[in-house]
Amino acid sequence: MYNHAPDGYDCPFCNLTHGKEAIYSSQTDIVREDNNTIALVSPKWWINNPGNVIVIPKEHFENIYEIPDEILSNVYKTAKKIAIAIKKTYQSDGTSMRQHNEPDGGQDVWHFHVHVFPRYKDDKLYQNHDKKRYVDKKDRQQYVNKLKEFLSIN
Amino acid sequence: MYNHAPDGYDCPFCNLTHGKEAIYSSQTDIVREDNNTIALVSPKWWINNPGNVIVIPKEHFENIYEIPDEILSNVYKTAKKIAIAIKKTYQSDGTSMRQHNEPDGGQDVWHFHVHVFPRYKDDKLYQNHDKKRYVDKKDRQQYVNKLKEFLSIN
Repeated sequence: MYNHAPDGYDCPFCNLTHGKEAIYSSQTDIVREDNNTIALVSPKWWINNPGNVIVIPKEHFENIYEIPDEILSNVYKTAKKIAIAIKKTYQSDGTSMRQHNEPDGGQDVWHFHVHVFPRYKDDKLYQNHDKKRYVDKKDRQQYVNKLKEFLSIN
Repeated sequence: MYNHAPDGYDCPFCNLTHGKEAIYSSQTDIVREDNNTIALVSPKWWINNPGNVIVIPKEHFENIYEIPDEILSNVYKTAKKIAIAIKKTYQSDGTSMRQHNEPDGGQDVWHFHVHVFPRYKDDKLYQNHDKKRYVDKKDRQQYVNKLKEFLSIN
């Protein structure tokens, strides 16, 4: 419903689910995997909020309009675990989540996903929306390590 | 966990749940109610995105860290219905959702809630974060009416 993926879309999140590398993300970015979902450190960071995490369902659905309720629930259960892990390991002042549907809703990967952000005093995450960049895999690794260690025992 | 509500907090969302009026919101703002959740048109609007909707669990939990999985699932199932209703009735170009935890995470009501936004081409919802205002109940009513009518038959 209201789909925007082009014909023959080479879905980066399906690639990750299938053990492959994706255009901006790698298997080494994955911090948690269960039967239904994967969580990975995002390759795109905002200036004051390094290490945000993306949570995806393994099964491909484009957006909120069409994802089945049970799968939506699985995604947010994982997002909750990630928010706690970020809070505990990044020692952030808060956390927030966002989810976008359709190009004019801010979506740019056509596979449902939720962003979980560490938040800090005066970070101005929204006002700084244009201050974002893709970061190297090696810069993501310290955040991956923190989250994986915490999630392995919690 | 990581609670910020003051002692004796007069919770506006609990007031709505209990059939009362709240500081900025009214019973007439409610567009959907089921056993576990309530959805209402927000009293606070961003400049290019009138009529955003807030979804809350009836039971009081402050944030993502402590909300039980089942209740979290109920909230997002309702949020999905609202996203579809917004898309269909506001004829928006997209939708997005956000959720905040702790003061530095952008939270200002100490009862877990999710915002569902209509999105429009070039609305710059994030960049315009400071361009928000409280609107009169009468201005909210046209959005309430659209959503209630749709949700009563869908």
